[in-house]
Amino acid sequence: MTSMLEAGTLVTLCSASKKDRFLVTLEDGGKLETRLGIILHDQIMSAGYGGKVLSHNGSAFYVTKPTLEEYLRKIKRRTQIVFPKEAGYILLQLDIRPGARVLECGTGSGGMTTVFASFVGDEGRVYSYDVREEFIELARRNCRKWRVEQRVSFKVRHISEGFDEREVDAVFLDLPDPWNYLPQVRDALALGRRMGALLPTFNQIERFLRSLEENAFVDVEVVEILHRALKSDPDRLRPEDRMIGHTGYLIFATPILYSNRGDGAI
Amino acid sequence: MTSMLEAGTLVTLCSASKKDRFLVTLEDGGKLETRLGIILHDQIMSAGYGGKVLSHNGSAFYVTKPTLEEYLRKIKRRTQIVFPKEAGYILLQLDIRPGARVLECGTGSGGMTTVFASFVGDEGRVYSYDVREEFIELARRNCRKWRVEQRVSFKVRHISEGFDEREVDAVFLDLPDPWNYLPQVRDALALGRRMGALLPTFNQIERFLRSLEENAFVDVEVVEILHRALKSDPDRLRPEDRMIGHTGYLIFATPILYSNRGDGAI
Amino acid sequence: MTSMLEAGTLVTLCSASKKDRFLVTLEDGGKLETRLGIILHDQIMSAGYGGKVLSHNGSAFYVTKPTLEEYLRKIKRRTQIVFPKEAGYILLQLDIRPGARVLECGTGSGGMTTVFASFVGDEGRVYSYDVREEFIELARRNCRKWRVEQRVSFKVRHISEGFDEREVDAVFLDLPDPWNYLPQVRDALALGRRMGALLPTFNQIERFLRSLEENAFVDVEVVEILHRALKSDPDRLRPEDRMIGHTGYLIFATPILYSNRGDGAI
Amino acid sequence: MTSMLEAGTLVTLCSASKKDRFLVTLEDGGKLETRLGIILHDQIMSAGYGGKVLSHNGSAFYVTKPTLEEYLRKIKRRTQIVFPKEAGYILLQLDIRPGARVLECGTGSGGMTTVFASFVGDEGRVYSYDVREEFIELARRNCRKWRVEQRVSFKVRHISEGFDEREVDAVFLDLPDPWNYLPQVRDALALGRRMGALLPTFNQIERFLRSLEENAFVDVEVVEILHRALKSDPDRLRPEDRMIGHTGYLIFATPILYSNRGDGAI
Repeated sequence: MTSMLEAGTLVTLCSASKKDRFLVTLEDGGKLETRLGIILHDQIMSAGYGGKVLSHNGSAFYVTKPTLEEYLRKIKRRTQIVFPKEAGYILLQLDIRPGARVLECGTGSGGMTTVFASFVGDEGRVYSYDVREEFIELARRNCRKWRVEQRVSFKVRHISEGFDEREVDAVFLDLPDPWNYLPQVRDALALGRRMGALLPTFNQIERFLRSLEENAFVDVEVVEILHRALKSDPDRLRPEDRMIGHTGYLIFATPILYSNRGDGAI
Repeated sequence: MTSMLEAGTLVTLCSASKKDRFLVTLEDGGKLETRLGIILHDQIMSAGYGGKVLSHNGSAFYVTKPTLEEYLRKIKRRTQIVFPKEAGYILLQLDIRPGARVLECGTGSGGMTTVFASFVGDEGRVYSYDVREEFIELARRNCRKWRVEQRVSFKVRHISEGFDEREVDAVFLDLPDPWNYLPQVRDALALGRRMGALLPTFNQIERFLRSLEENAFVDVEVVEILHRALKSDPDRLRPEDRMIGHTGYLIFATPILYSNRGDGAI
Repeated sequence: MTSMLEAGTLVTLCSASKKDRFLVTLEDGGKLETRLGIILHDQIMSAGYGGKVLSHNGSAFYVTKPTLEEYLRKIKRRTQIVFPKEAGYILLQLDIRPGARVLECGTGSGGMTTVFASFVGDEGRVYSYDVREEFIELARRNCRKWRVEQRVSFKVRHISEGFDEREVDAVFLDLPDPWNYLPQVRDALALGRRMGALLPTFNQIERFLRSLEENAFVDVEVVEILHRALKSDPDRLRPEDRMIGHTGYLIFATPILYSNRGDGAI
Repeated sequence: MTSMLEAGTLVTLCSASKKDRFLVTLEDGGKLETRLGIILHDQIMSAGYGGKVLSHNGSAFYVTKPTLEEYLRKIKRRTQIVFPKEAGYILLQLDIRPGARVLECGTGSGGMTTVFASFVGDEGRVYSYDVREEFIELARRNCRKWRVEQRVSFKVRHISEGFDEREVDAVFLDLPDPWNYLPQVRDALALGRRMGALLPTFNQIERFLRSLEENAFVDVEVVEILHRALKSDPDRLRPEDRMIGHTGYLIFATPILYSNRGDGAI
């Protein structure tokens, strides 16, 4: 029932204890060195998905197909990246879907770029801006490894110069000072559509909220998403001892026509 | 710059105060009655996305395009539905993407059906099983309103009879007793792929974890996702006074070949 | 084994379903009207602690001794009060103990006054300032009902005029603008001792933190305490559906001698 | 204004950066070696509370009076101890106050023993049982250092043999199997009074809840208390990156007379 895996395939090796996990791009003759022993890529190819391999000293690993959740956690990064808990929620709030055109700035390590590119499909398009060329290179490699690079247009440019695109379906900002660039966002976004931003501090949220109001963005939502894992031992079911206490806050808002802003008694 | 909206369009009306929100399918001659006054659909059509309308007594509302996040919150339901906070995370953990074939059971009110159908695109397919015909009818209407009904095969059948599909990319269970049906899940799921389940109580998690182990599912993750909103007043920035304390726990796992289970020291 | 309860005793009646709870000061001939029926105080007196009484239509209630946790939740209030989850933590952070002299401002509804007065004992003393006479009257009644009024000196005065006391063991501020009064706090507090404050918004925390630094308060802790209840059904163990999302943040700090502030390379 | 501190005093040294903190019992000629340099106890004695001392290489430390919150976090332990966030809440739920008689089992490292002994004052009494003599010795030392040892009766005995005390004001259980000992708790507790327990896993909570019902304990509360710290930088206000995800659940309940249990229609 199993079938050989080919060189070039990206697989997950997870130890039977689940503590050790590896994302591996299979190569003929490759080998993976772990603290639980050495595994040959040939073993993995023969085992196939759902299969088991034993390291040279007898530790068991299972072969599974990597998910985007795992890829995002393991992605090579030089910046703080968006976590899966936030990425999923962003998809729904910005109404990303196959065929959508999504604009993001900055690119960073390309975590969110990869997520957007995965969900817009081959009919959609991601436009990703960053002023730092080295980040764009990293993001490009990260997208390539997940096989979605062809859906992304990377652009080395500072947001203050504006975006080339118009009528995009969503804009996502991962910048330290998004409050400075709301006119550029407005120019790019289709009417009635939503923008999102990730901000770590309350000081930033406060400034951004004021800017959103001044720039006639309405329907503002500020939210944090928390991920609390449980230990998966059925005899001792309980939350994990440690958790991530903070990544950042998500802010979503929709621009209205300037002519319509304000007043609006209620 | 604005353009008229056509009858049949689904729009969001949100009051300037943001407290009142309405999902409206526009009809010629239609009208919306709210506690803030009456609004004619014709007004909304003329205003267009990003536009403002005033109710008969002067309250302002903005016209925006509904997002999946909002649709999911407002969906007609006869059951507890999956919340946006969980739905997004499920997409990443189950590695849903355009073109994917996803199986879910039970259908319930069709909230998660709509989410899956939105993200698999026209190339993908959702197979949704429920033993209760009236729920399937509700889910069908909910999917139709979001214009993704054509991507879903609804089936009135009890899970114990098994699924028709094989080699699907993901399985999601929203059932009170998922521990009874892991062989059926295994039969349907492609090798190396992941299943997810939503369970509200610890007793259920405990039973399900034991069943996962007996059925050779590995790489188990149990997690809860919490959504904590902030009030969006920049002068009085603070979390909302009330929050949802609990919806349910998500459990994810991947079956391995039976022949490979167990032993695996470590 | 039981013994009669006397008139004047404060008791808790909790319905067998636990949903309905009442704090009752027993009176000869008194009666309690509830949505589960009428109960005569005489019944409660005869039943005694640990006893059961039936309302006129057969609903069961148990008689227990009220705890400070319950009293605090049920206290008559005209202001937001400190919650038990915060009150307990404040006791440890401010090192309240029998015999301590504690200063608070403002008095509010007297919730925290009651807590402090309960723990300082007859050898200790609470000094409670508020500029609003009607709040002091309410707080006085709340302390009296818990039988700790004799341990409190209430003072109608604005904090800007300073405190009469010196060398107190702890200061607690429940004010909208505590940043304006740190010199007064410093004057009252014994060397090496700690002050605490409760603030609901991030804007307030930000201002207060700046003021603490300017006024040579060190060892600053900012924390929120969350209380998450579980449903107590062993067959369906799970968190409650709703929870309090926010009450306020606690900030603690200790003044150092002015001459010693600042510099301190690390 | 400052005054010399005497040998034998327990003080807190906190570095100006707040990252390093030390609990020190002052000794003539003593010295404290830290990664930020060496400090002589004589320096601390001269500086006094609120004073500043410089280590031999110029790092600044402030001298403050330790709080119970800090002592509890720093206590010498051989077991998991109750955290300040839980300890404070327990005080209110069990209605501890000066003069109260409190029974706990097991003693563990004496963290909760110290808390109870601090709050019952010289008129109160803590009875602390543990079957492990070495823990009782550790707890005794921990209480002595906080100068409350004289308020505690330690007893080396297994709970199954019952307690010597009757009519105590509160019972607290920190045991792996509290469900086995509810008759002993009932025998010791005054009518109408409350018991508490700390349990880390859901499996334990489930068993304990069943036992509480069988043993006619009512008014059950199950709760977890979460402590979420913020970074105290006013320019970058945000929650800490990491937090404690789980310590344990608190369960509180009150026994009623056996003759009165059950039935109780509502």
